[in-house]
Amino acid sequence: MIETFTVTGMTCGHCEAAVTRAIRRLDPEAQVRIDRGHNRVEVDTSRLTREALASAIREEGYEVAD
Amino acid sequence: MIETFTVTGMTCGHCEAAVTRAIRRLDPEAQVRIDRGHNRVEVDTSRLTREALASAIREEGYEVAD
Repeated sequence: MIETFTVTGMTCGHCEAAVTRAIRRLDPEAQVRIDRGHNRVEVDTSRLTREALASAIREEGYEVAD
Repeated sequence: MIETFTVTGMTCGHCEAAVTRAIRRLDPEAQVRIDRGHNRVEVDTSRLTREALASAIREEGYEVAD
């Protein structure tokens, strides 16, 4: 299942790493692709719901558009 | 010895953490204070020269003014 989010607040590569890490903590097999220039986060996961992914990203300190 | 640097490129809290970590790897007892809004990094260390500190910051990917 591929879920795509609009995420604001990612300012640098460390932010990308933080978002990726937060998702991978919950699903180590998740594939995370981030296009920071377009505020885009795409996650391929068989374990996490869209809501769980959005929560993980928000808890890391970033805003997720609905 | 307190050394102060003007460092550009630190965009977020993760960047501050990366700079702090890079310095602490070389001197675990170093005190690092960062004022990102003013591009200012202040380090109190008894082990590292100014040149070693500047190199550590640059190797992390940030620019240090001379």
